[in-house]
Parts: sequence; structure tokens; C-alpha cells
Amino acid sequence: MLPEPTPDIVVSTSAALLERIRADRPRVHCLTNPVAMNLSANVLLAAGAIPSMTSRAESVADFVATSRALVVNLGMLDAEREAAILRAVPAANELGRPWLLDPVKIDRSPIRLAFARRLLSQGPAVLRANIDETAALGEIGSCVLASTGAVDRITDGRRTVSITNGSPLMDRVTAIGCAASALGGAFLAVTSDPFEAAVAALLVMAVAGEIAAARSRGPGSFQVELLDALYLLDADTLRARAHLQ
Amino acid sequence: MLPEPTPDIVVSTSAALLERIRADRPRVHCLTNPVAMNLSANVLLAAGAIPSMTSRAESVADFVATSRALVVNLGMLDAEREAAILRAVPAANELGRPWLLDPVKIDRSPIRLAFARRLLSQGPAVLRANIDETAALGEIGSCVLASTGAVDRITDGRRTVSITNGSPLMDRVTAIGCAASALGGAFLAVTSDPFEAAVAALLVMAVAGEIAAARSRGPGSFQVELLDALYLLDADTLRARAHLQ
Amino acid sequence: MLPEPTPDIVVSTSAALLERIRADRPRVHCLTNPVAMNLSANVLLAAGAIPSMTSRAESVADFVATSRALVVNLGMLDAEREAAILRAVPAANELGRPWLLDPVKIDRSPIRLAFARRLLSQGPAVLRANIDETAALGEIGSCVLASTGAVDRITDGRRTVSITNGSPLMDRVTAIGCAASALGGAFLAVTSDPFEAAVAALLVMAVAGEIAAARSRGPGSFQVELLDALYLLDADTLRARAHLQ
Repeated sequence: MLPEPTPDIVVSTSAALLERIRADRPRVHCLTNPVAMNLSANVLLAAGAIPSMTSRAESVADFVATSRALVVNLGMLDAEREAAILRAVPAANELGRPWLLDPVKIDRSPIRLAFARRLLSQGPAVLRANIDETAALGEIGSCVLASTGAVDRITDGRRTVSITNGSPLMDRVTAIGCAASALGGAFLAVTSDPFEAAVAALLVMAVAGEIAAARSRGPGSFQVELLDALYLLDADTLRARAHLQ
Repeated sequence: MLPEPTPDIVVSTSAALLERIRADRPRVHCLTNPVAMNLSANVLLAAGAIPSMTSRAESVADFVATSRALVVNLGMLDAEREAAILRAVPAANELGRPWLLDPVKIDRSPIRLAFARRLLSQGPAVLRANIDETAALGEIGSCVLASTGAVDRITDGRRTVSITNGSPLMDRVTAIGCAASALGGAFLAVTSDPFEAAVAALLVMAVAGEIAAARSRGPGSFQVELLDALYLLDADTLRARAHLQ
Repeated sequence: MLPEPTPDIVVSTSAALLERIRADRPRVHCLTNPVAMNLSANVLLAAGAIPSMTSRAESVADFVATSRALVVNLGMLDAEREAAILRAVPAANELGRPWLLDPVKIDRSPIRLAFARRLLSQGPAVLRANIDETAALGEIGSCVLASTGAVDRITDGRRTVSITNGSPLMDRVTAIGCAASALGGAFLAVTSDPFEAAVAALLVMAVAGEIAAARSRGPGSFQVELLDALYLLDADTLRARAHLQ
């Protein structure tokens, strides 16, 4: 993408990447928390990717090697997943697999914050975090920052896109942010530009969320409609619905 | 509440507490089993509370300190969660955070029963259990007992309320009882009277379950409708539907 | 069943076993991965069985002893579940409880493949696997092989049934295969013929999946409809829909 990507370019690129996920069906290894696992796997499958999720240290490198991207989510971080992350990240770096870091709730856990800083120094392609988590981290170095909230803002320091799609219902279902991070892994798998990948993942998620909210009565039906909307999303709908700044 | 709370008082109090959860959005830390985590988090969010669920011993006290109530669920109890509970409960007691104990399936595991007895001696505000679990425990001391089944019965030894709302479909979806316990944590967060909290949680859950069952074809749609019903529940509906004894 | 079971006999037997699950409500202990736990428990409950899922080594034998069948799923295998499996399987064998093995993703993890081979030598009643997993295992010995894919094929070396029901949406929801294995445990609990059990489980799952797909817009609604369809399935529908070879 150009330094100042127009809405048209953002939408076309995002739609093309979504088609590539559906055509290629890339494997994505996702080290995430147990609350988020099921929804993250289902979001990946709805978009067309193939998830795996083992967090056993001894086997995680085998799964990274046979995947095209890695997602590292720190929610509910336990000793086993921490050990797996410390093997998966160097394996991904060595094999040239892009990885995304989601430093869940580091603003509430000093131990987890320290671990997130250590990972940040190992070169994630994308950092996906909310405002409190971003504030807790401070300096983030050179990776793409995908900051989510009422407005999602993605920047690589040179290019910036803001997305105002979404729905308040997205805050009433657990692990929607984690699932957006998982989806970021699917987009990282099909482009060499992490900025493009992060923009596309958050745009697709926010537009699908908006469609789902319009069809829902509450958070139960919202979650069902979200997966259906991701599965059915096409370029025309993305173009008609995208609100970018 | 008075020694003999009338249905009117029970409903008004419960509706007021639900409004308080929606207004205050209290944080509730929930140490629960992996089958129940996602639904419990979604029930808390649908009602208006903010869940966290880490069970890492080193960080659990940080989460208890920044939460207003704690839920301790023994389903699928593993060594890690056991260690976390043994840190979280003293932290909650020291900080004056009320906590609820759900001794899942202690009637089928002598080891877990012994652990539940140990926890019971540490002063939970509420014990939420089914008939088999209550029978296995025997003497429960001075906490509020919220016993669930075809009829839910809540007592603090002085006051008693029985709730006959609900639906047989609630037994056909996993972790509904665990989710009711999680909801108990949200109510404990907004009142200093654990009896009130336990009554309100079980009443809200049973009425929402009844509404959901009337809109469902089976256990799949029931789970969706339950979250929607919790999210949409208002005082008038609670008053019109509550069946109390 | 006879050496060459006719479609009529397969359907009658399967419907009768489903009725037995609903009448007996057998307990099934399921050692499975955290992505699959919730759906597996809900599939068991929708069919009428009572799931338990603890994977703590010290208590797993207590749960096997009070269950009528065991399911061993290797997805996301961690050290704790591995230890639990090594206690649960001998306990099941000693008590005469049939058990089913689901060697998830062994084609992507040499460590897990070695463990699956070790378990296979301990005599599962049924092996439920996809084509890649079956190929990775090689020789499987004398257990019933339930191989799933576009066509499901069940054989005990003497009898063979192929099922062509199902829907492509079943591959777009996580842990559907794991849930089919869990359901296999429920059927093992109500017949002494593991071939019958495996056929019935896969037939019921595939027909319910086909009904669900016809009522769905995408993978979100599919999962909801699948649980409803399992709950509502009757002998007439099974007979009208079954496609057997």
C-alpha cells in the first residue's frame, strides 16, 4: 500500500487478501487462552484458514514449521504456554513465519507485562492491543501497531488507517479481540506486508461485526451471526460498508 | 432483606442489583474449568460484568485485587488451578472481596471433596451446589447455601427463598450451573448481602432460562437465547415471570 | 449386526441405540482438548449422555470407574492429559469399560504419533481418525476403524459400512470430528458391539449435520442447528435421510 492508502485501495486489498485465504486455506498456529480458543478457531475456519492450537513446548515447533503464520496471545498465560511461546517465537523467526502478538490484560499483571516486553524485542510483525494495553507497554519498536477500540487504528509509522466500523455488542462477547488477533494471523499468512494484513483483519472483523449486530437481539445471537457474516462476506459488501479515515 | 422476604421484595431487590451490575460493570475474577470458561465469561458480559479468568498462581492475586468478587469453581480441578485457588482465596479474604464456591462433582471425586471441605472452612460468602454435591459435603457452616435443581433453594439459615422457574433444557447444555455461579460473583460484587446476591443470581438465571426455552427448538438455540435473554432482561419481565415460594 | 449389514438393519440398530442413550443417560468420561471440550460436552448432552472431562491424573480413575465408556482424544496433547490417559486407559481396561481413541493431528507431530501407537497397543474398542491420521498410523491391529471424510467408512475387518451423509460446513466448524468421537463414547456405553456403536455415532452425526446445514446460513448457525438436530433426531428422520453403501 501507498503511504496514504485511499479507502478504495484499502478495501480492494483487504477483499483480495480474504479471497486468497479462502483459496489457499493457510494453516495458522495459534497459541491462545482457553476462553478464546474455540471462537478463535471458528473465526479462522469461517474465514477459510486452518487453525492448530497445541501449546506443548515439545511439539510446538513442529506445528509452527507446518503453518504459515503464528499468533501469540497472552490471555490467561500459564507456565506451559509461556514455555511453548519461548520455543515457537524463535522457530517462527528462524523459518521466516510472521507472528502477531496480543498482550491481553498486561495492564493488570506486572509479570505478564514484563513477558510481553521481552516478546516485543523478538520482532512480532504485528502488535494487536487495546488502549490500556498499549499504554502499559510504552515504546513498541518497529512493528505494526493495530490498536483496537471504538475506532481501530493501524499504523506502521509511515502509513495509518482508521476504521470506525463495529458495534458495541462486540464488547459483550468474550474473546472477540482475541479472535481478531487470530484472524490477523490468517492475513499475515497470505501477504508479505504486515500493515496490509493488520488492516484487512480488523476491517473484515469490524464489518462482519456490524453486519452481525444488525441481525442480532443480543450477545448470544451476535456470536452466531458473526461467524456467518465472516463466512459470507464478499468484496461488494466490504466496499459498501467500510468506514475508513 | 427481611427474615421472610416477600416475592415483591425479592423481585425488586434482584432487579435493582441487575441494574447496578449494568451501571457499575464490576470486574469479577472467575477461577473455573475449561468447559465452563467461555459460557461463564459470556454470561458475565451479557449481564454487564467484566470477567477475568487467569489461574496462574503468580498472577492471580493481582487479578483478585483489581476485581470486586471472586468465583471458585472446582470442575476439572487441576494442580495449577488448585494452587491458584490457594492464593486467590486468602487474597480475597484479606482484601474483603466476597467469594463464591462451586464444588462441581465432589460426589464423584474423594480428592476434590477433601479440597472443597478445606475451602469451605475459609469462609466463602456463598456455596452454590446441586443436591448430590450438598449431600457429599455434609455440614457447611455459616455461608449462604444456594442449592440448585428443579427447585432452587437459597438460605442463610435465617431467610429462605425457593425459585421454581427454569427449564429442563438447562440440563441439556453443559456448564449452565457453572455459569450461574459465575453470575453469582457479579451479584456479590454489587451488594454486601450474599443472600440477596445468591437469590438474585439464581432468579435472573432461571427466568432467563425459561424465556430462552420458550424461544428454542433444542439445546443449541437455547444457549444462544439464554445470553440474549440475560442481556435483555428487565424488571417488568422479571416481575411477570418470577415464581417464588 | 450381520457380516453384510443392510441399510435397514444399520438404521434400525442406530435408532435403537440412540433411544437407549436417551433412556439410560450413560456417563461418558472424555479426555479431550480444550478447543473441543465445550462442543463435545454439548453433543453428548444433546444426545442424552452425561459427560465428565477432568484430566487430572489423581482423580481420573474415579471418573472412569463411575462412567460406562471412555474417550481419549489427543488434540493439543499436554503433559497433564498424557499422564491422565496413562492412568485412565488401564483403569478402563481393568473395569471392562470400552474406550475410543481419536489421534488428532498425529500426522503433524512425531511425538504425538509415537504416543498414539503406544495407546493403540492397549486395545481401544474404536479408532476414529481422518485419512491423514490413519495413513500416519499404518497398521492398526484389531480394533474397529471409523475413518471419516467426505465418506465415512467403518470396518471391523469383517463388516463394513460407508456413510455418505454430511455437509461441507462440518469442516468449517472446529472440533466437529472430536465431537463425533465423543458421541462414539456414548454409543459404546450402550452396546457391547463396538462396530455397531461406531456406525451409529457417525451416522447420527452425519445426518444431524446434513439437517443442520439445510437450516444454516454459515458455520455460526450450523453449530446451533447441529445441537438442535441431535436433540430432535428420531428414527423416521434417520431412516428417511440415511445414505449408506
